[in-house]
Amino acid sequence: MDFRPSDRAAELTAAARAFLDTEIEPVEARYHHEVAALRESGGDPWQPLPLLAELQEKARAQGLWNLFLPAGEGDAYAARYGTAGGAGLSNADYAPIAEVTGRSFLAPYLFNCNAPDTGNMEVLLKYGDDAQRAEWLEPLLEGRIRSAFCMTEPDVASSDATTMELSAVVDGDEMVINGRKWWSTGVGHPDCKILIVMGLTDPGAARHSRHSMVLVPRDAPGVKVERMLSTMGMQDEPFGHGEVSFTDVRVPLSNVIAGPGRAFEIAQGRLGPGRVHHCMRLIGLAEKALELACERGLARTAFGKPLVNLGGNRERIAEARIAIDSTRLLVLNTAWKLDEGGPLNALSEVSQIKVAAPTMAQQVIDFAIQLHGGGGLSDDFPLAAAWTSARALRLADGPDEVHKGVIARLELGKHGAKR
Amino acid sequence: MDFRPSDRAAELTAAARAFLDTEIEPVEARYHHEVAALRESGGDPWQPLPLLAELQEKARAQGLWNLFLPAGEGDAYAARYGTAGGAGLSNADYAPIAEVTGRSFLAPYLFNCNAPDTGNMEVLLKYGDDAQRAEWLEPLLEGRIRSAFCMTEPDVASSDATTMELSAVVDGDEMVINGRKWWSTGVGHPDCKILIVMGLTDPGAARHSRHSMVLVPRDAPGVKVERMLSTMGMQDEPFGHGEVSFTDVRVPLSNVIAGPGRAFEIAQGRLGPGRVHHCMRLIGLAEKALELACERGLARTAFGKPLVNLGGNRERIAEARIAIDSTRLLVLNTAWKLDEGGPLNALSEVSQIKVAAPTMAQQVIDFAIQLHGGGGLSDDFPLAAAWTSARALRLADGPDEVHKGVIARLELGKHGAKR
Amino acid sequence: MDFRPSDRAAELTAAARAFLDTEIEPVEARYHHEVAALRESGGDPWQPLPLLAELQEKARAQGLWNLFLPAGEGDAYAARYGTAGGAGLSNADYAPIAEVTGRSFLAPYLFNCNAPDTGNMEVLLKYGDDAQRAEWLEPLLEGRIRSAFCMTEPDVASSDATTMELSAVVDGDEMVINGRKWWSTGVGHPDCKILIVMGLTDPGAARHSRHSMVLVPRDAPGVKVERMLSTMGMQDEPFGHGEVSFTDVRVPLSNVIAGPGRAFEIAQGRLGPGRVHHCMRLIGLAEKALELACERGLARTAFGKPLVNLGGNRERIAEARIAIDSTRLLVLNTAWKLDEGGPLNALSEVSQIKVAAPTMAQQVIDFAIQLHGGGGLSDDFPLAAAWTSARALRLADGPDEVHKGVIARLELGKHGAKR
Amino acid sequence: MDFRPSDRAAELTAAARAFLDTEIEPVEARYHHEVAALRESGGDPWQPLPLLAELQEKARAQGLWNLFLPAGEGDAYAARYGTAGGAGLSNADYAPIAEVTGRSFLAPYLFNCNAPDTGNMEVLLKYGDDAQRAEWLEPLLEGRIRSAFCMTEPDVASSDATTMELSAVVDGDEMVINGRKWWSTGVGHPDCKILIVMGLTDPGAARHSRHSMVLVPRDAPGVKVERMLSTMGMQDEPFGHGEVSFTDVRVPLSNVIAGPGRAFEIAQGRLGPGRVHHCMRLIGLAEKALELACERGLARTAFGKPLVNLGGNRERIAEARIAIDSTRLLVLNTAWKLDEGGPLNALSEVSQIKVAAPTMAQQVIDFAIQLHGGGGLSDDFPLAAAWTSARALRLADGPDEVHKGVIARLELGKHGAKR
Repeated sequence: MDFRPSDRAAELTAAARAFLDTEIEPVEARYHHEVAALRESGGDPWQPLPLLAELQEKARAQGLWNLFLPAGEGDAYAARYGTAGGAGLSNADYAPIAEVTGRSFLAPYLFNCNAPDTGNMEVLLKYGDDAQRAEWLEPLLEGRIRSAFCMTEPDVASSDATTMELSAVVDGDEMVINGRKWWSTGVGHPDCKILIVMGLTDPGAARHSRHSMVLVPRDAPGVKVERMLSTMGMQDEPFGHGEVSFTDVRVPLSNVIAGPGRAFEIAQGRLGPGRVHHCMRLIGLAEKALELACERGLARTAFGKPLVNLGGNRERIAEARIAIDSTRLLVLNTAWKLDEGGPLNALSEVSQIKVAAPTMAQQVIDFAIQLHGGGGLSDDFPLAAAWTSARALRLADGPDEVHKGVIARLELGKHGAKR
Repeated sequence: MDFRPSDRAAELTAAARAFLDTEIEPVEARYHHEVAALRESGGDPWQPLPLLAELQEKARAQGLWNLFLPAGEGDAYAARYGTAGGAGLSNADYAPIAEVTGRSFLAPYLFNCNAPDTGNMEVLLKYGDDAQRAEWLEPLLEGRIRSAFCMTEPDVASSDATTMELSAVVDGDEMVINGRKWWSTGVGHPDCKILIVMGLTDPGAARHSRHSMVLVPRDAPGVKVERMLSTMGMQDEPFGHGEVSFTDVRVPLSNVIAGPGRAFEIAQGRLGPGRVHHCMRLIGLAEKALELACERGLARTAFGKPLVNLGGNRERIAEARIAIDSTRLLVLNTAWKLDEGGPLNALSEVSQIKVAAPTMAQQVIDFAIQLHGGGGLSDDFPLAAAWTSARALRLADGPDEVHKGVIARLELGKHGAKR
Repeated sequence: MDFRPSDRAAELTAAARAFLDTEIEPVEARYHHEVAALRESGGDPWQPLPLLAELQEKARAQGLWNLFLPAGEGDAYAARYGTAGGAGLSNADYAPIAEVTGRSFLAPYLFNCNAPDTGNMEVLLKYGDDAQRAEWLEPLLEGRIRSAFCMTEPDVASSDATTMELSAVVDGDEMVINGRKWWSTGVGHPDCKILIVMGLTDPGAARHSRHSMVLVPRDAPGVKVERMLSTMGMQDEPFGHGEVSFTDVRVPLSNVIAGPGRAFEIAQGRLGPGRVHHCMRLIGLAEKALELACERGLARTAFGKPLVNLGGNRERIAEARIAIDSTRLLVLNTAWKLDEGGPLNALSEVSQIKVAAPTMAQQVIDFAIQLHGGGGLSDDFPLAAAWTSARALRLADGPDEVHKGVIARLELGKHGAKR
Repeated sequence: MDFRPSDRAAELTAAARAFLDTEIEPVEARYHHEVAALRESGGDPWQPLPLLAELQEKARAQGLWNLFLPAGEGDAYAARYGTAGGAGLSNADYAPIAEVTGRSFLAPYLFNCNAPDTGNMEVLLKYGDDAQRAEWLEPLLEGRIRSAFCMTEPDVASSDATTMELSAVVDGDEMVINGRKWWSTGVGHPDCKILIVMGLTDPGAARHSRHSMVLVPRDAPGVKVERMLSTMGMQDEPFGHGEVSFTDVRVPLSNVIAGPGRAFEIAQGRLGPGRVHHCMRLIGLAEKALELACERGLARTAFGKPLVNLGGNRERIAEARIAIDSTRLLVLNTAWKLDEGGPLNALSEVSQIKVAAPTMAQQVIDFAIQLHGGGGLSDDFPLAAAWTSARALRLADGPDEVHKGVIARLELGKHGAKR
């Protein structure tokens, strides 16, 4: 048993942290205020500020680029499009880097390691054919274009993905798409050029073989972003979450990833490592919140004492530390199990972290807000955005309740239960 | 023992509910979308839509106006400015009406029963002199002007109000005010004409006699709204929460309410009934959220069942019902104790409800959000705003932790503890 | 709205409290130690100490006897067997008295107001015929005999009472009983002379008409107490909880209460007020625990401070106060609704208190234990027994989960759900 | 990073589990019933049943003996008194074995790995001199004698060990001991021959140098076990927890471990690995409880469904799985950090697990009890004893609140706070 990160992971994590501390932290608050000012003055907050491209270039120059690329399948691309030593990273090695990036809302984008692009790139890497990779994966790895993932629909319960109704019907050598998606993250970015859309192809097939995953160019006729959704009042520019309608959208059959009917298989393969990434970022976010709480609690005084010495605040600091550390270990162990035996080796674990990490982060951040008083709710601190991010992840990629159902099914399976 | 509301309370509650159902509910979603559209299109969301004034007029015509006016002190004004039978209401009688208004973000304003105007009117009613009442109370009761309450400051812990630093210094027959406030609710409204400002007058006086409560016209030279704050990304137009600077602001000494040094006495008198109002509105808000949760949970289907039949959802519905009902009873009992013996008769109770109601509402609303999936986080439902409202009230009017301190002190006092 | 108890309730509550303070509290610890000594020395802890009969006599002389008897049906018996003014009490009037008795494990017995005798007497009062009342109710009201209630069975889930398997078969003019019960409370008392046994009479009848409630003399041939069960290591002498086997037990058909097939109807009628009693006693128990916690927390010192000033202890005292007060109001409101409209008027409420009160009490007592350190777990304080009592009531009379199911069903029924 | 146990740990864990499954499980229920029968029939439950010695011999023959001996210091003794390959185990290697032993209340004793003997042996190993080791350590390793640890006192808050008052005064070449201890675990065992007693030697010395750790033979004149304490009604025979008085007890100065004034240093050294053991045993206990819950929940039926399919039971199974797995990882990581850098390397971690593991276990066991209905509270299942064990560990070895204080202090220290 050895809880130490590998040398390579330790080095890259330190480099990422140094970049965060010296390049991102000093400008992040200003960045958000500029976007807010644009928003309030009637400007266009969706156009990424030039600062972002500059920082991306710096990050890439320092080898902090596409680090999410997985060992094995990702090695060839890592050698060409990443600069971090020429090989993809294991989940266990990438995890602490993801934690560092979670401390900032900008870092994942600046390192070309942000959802949903990472997940989409992994899909293309694992399931795409050569043409699909050449057309979409490579520019994504370059950071020249962005992508969106269109799965959730407004009219059905997204918690049960088999219910999705948008139709993706084969018509000769074309796929014809009709329907509506929402919470299509990334669709607001002006560089978003490609959507991966999950649609119903064969309602009569077996439950997990009915849907297809289709590459739909953002500018295909019939694709319309109806509106951008807010999450607890926030728009998350420049990515955003869109409601998108598809009206008689036609793409060649060659745009179907891995062929019709394989959407579920692809979605599952996409989600394992993606959930590790999300969860490690939440660990970083919670650490950041706890640091802010400690600093505020030591600096502010009420009733003649620093806030940390009032009421149960020290107990809550301790509880936050326990929650963060135990959840981090749960995620790292999951990453390691994915590395050791693939998704089937970590079915329960992946669902466990998906429940544990957002819940933990939400709670730690809520405490940090409380210690910040009214300021904690404002945008003077990153806490309101952090809370929203953790809260949203209790729903995104499957609500807590669905994951708990998976965990319980696997647990009861050990005792002979069929379901 | 009798848990039935009085006949008058029952009638007015029913009338308020009817107004809500027939006049407000049908237009509320549209109202919020129009404001959002103004916001996004670079329009001015701070200018109240004409609809509001129309509905205010209707509400007033139906006697649903200034119902918050307290029995006794408020009778004379109720007779002139309210139309609900010509006498102020007891706390116990107003409580169920406040619950009804809490179901909608517009209702309190439409009934001229919204914070902070109600609290400010109560201050003028209880502590103001005739001139102050004539100048400010009467137009507030008419709904012709609005007001703000300036207490919290950015640089000190608002949880300990004795630490407030904005200076309100007597200079001859004037009060000179210098300093900065934030979370000054209501200051964004174009009709806001008067601020009640709490300032430090005599740092050498006894701890609770140092501060004064001063009437400062919104347009006095030296008053500047530096910016409007967001709460979890929301601006709460047309009221909003401002950061306000005061630079050599001079007002006549006659603008000091009840004379210099009496701010704490006034603040305490202001807060008892105000907290009952807030808490009853939260009960209404939680009821609304639970209704939405039940409806959504029955209408949406996943894994072949309505959501309410999945996992622990029914248990959570039951827990919400228990939490709402027991908290409502706690608030009603507090209102009754205030009526029976005034604020000193309900010191622990007022703090208890201030802890219990926002916590309960936050939890019920969080559950309702979860049952709504992504939609629950968007502004398609009133849930994100409801959550923010409940969360903010865990800080506003004193954070939970301070109120728990009060309750514990009173409890330990029963066993002989001095503090 | 009026939260004040009636004069009669106030007087009786004060009298009960005075008896508790002057007669019971001074001897209670010694009583428990004597029982423990008997137990450890191989004596017979099941034989009630003479002290109990002496105190019963005193309580009866002071009119603190059979106060549970319900207004209306109970009036005639109250006049003869109670001495508290000659009429039964409403639920709302009895509730605060029950709270007082809950502060002590002896008080309910000393006032002849202890479960399961109270519930059994109510059954006989409401559903028994004259002969049954003469034979069993009157000596129970005198305190000359004791009774047990035999419902739960070891081999089926007691949470679903329709599954109960003990057979109670009509054979001519006799009822023949075969099967096994456990958690038959009261069966250990040497004065226990009568069991009310729920058995399956007609498996083919409608789901809630299959079972009968039968009066079985404790000494009927074929009745055997197989063993006494422990609850968290405690035996609860002199009442205890037994596992009882019934082998070809024959009683006359006239021993069937209200006739065959009516067990469910009777059980429901028995449980409403009984749950109010249980819950009010738990309120009293939680109050007692909080008092002990405050006293211990003020008297004990660690790290140079009284325990109450360490960590989150004051917050927990405040949370306990809020939880106790809001739960008490919930129970009082339920009692009032039962008085106003009977069990059908308070279906959700009765289930709500059954969930809320034990959970609340368990939590408050757990906190009190923690403040008492190791002593809190020992029998030097009544806290270990109190915790066990609260914990057991999360299962007895229906587990929390079943009651939550009832509450949710009623809640969803408001929105049109059939179940 | 590697979460796999070492080969040696894996082998020993498997052997321990096999012994548990084949030798202990089949007889454990019968063992407890025999002890209970002795207790109820006035026999002597403190005399270990012969079965225990037989199983100890078998365990020893299979190398499952003294496995707790630490690598390094323990190697020589492991070679002589253990038979598991002749070297002590690292904390990380022993941890999974401790988990297995936690599944049974007998296993630790049968493997000579039970508290407080293990901690006492470690004290002698690390701080004892040759004579002390020869006289006490060797017979303890043989299992020929037992020991107790006397630290907590009835009259002071045990949470702050510096307040302990029992006096241990140097008088010439003797130590004279006067005072009273309680919760002296192990003192009830007839083989208990030696007590390690913490006493106040020099009240004027620095806060952590006032106390000494003294070896006091059980039969020294003046040592009296006043009574055995119960924990939630349980006596934990044959070890038990005693209240012990010391009246002018005299032992030679050579009985002071490591010399006067070093009690705190010794206590700290004793507690690190000891807490890992306790916590891993709790993990095992929680696993056992979850297994019982799953089995019961699948086997019992109510309302036509297995209990696991009712209400929130599946969610609670999932939550238990998450809680167990994340807590196990927290403990394993702590063990590893202790191995890597000693106690100073894991100060926060040791306190974290001491908070997390008992809390988690208490919660999982409470759920398992609830699924077992009344049976869960009885001694038909090991759940009541398991709950009591977890609850007691929220107090033993320092209450949760003290450990949270330590964690918070270390956390705030990162931000410059002195305390």
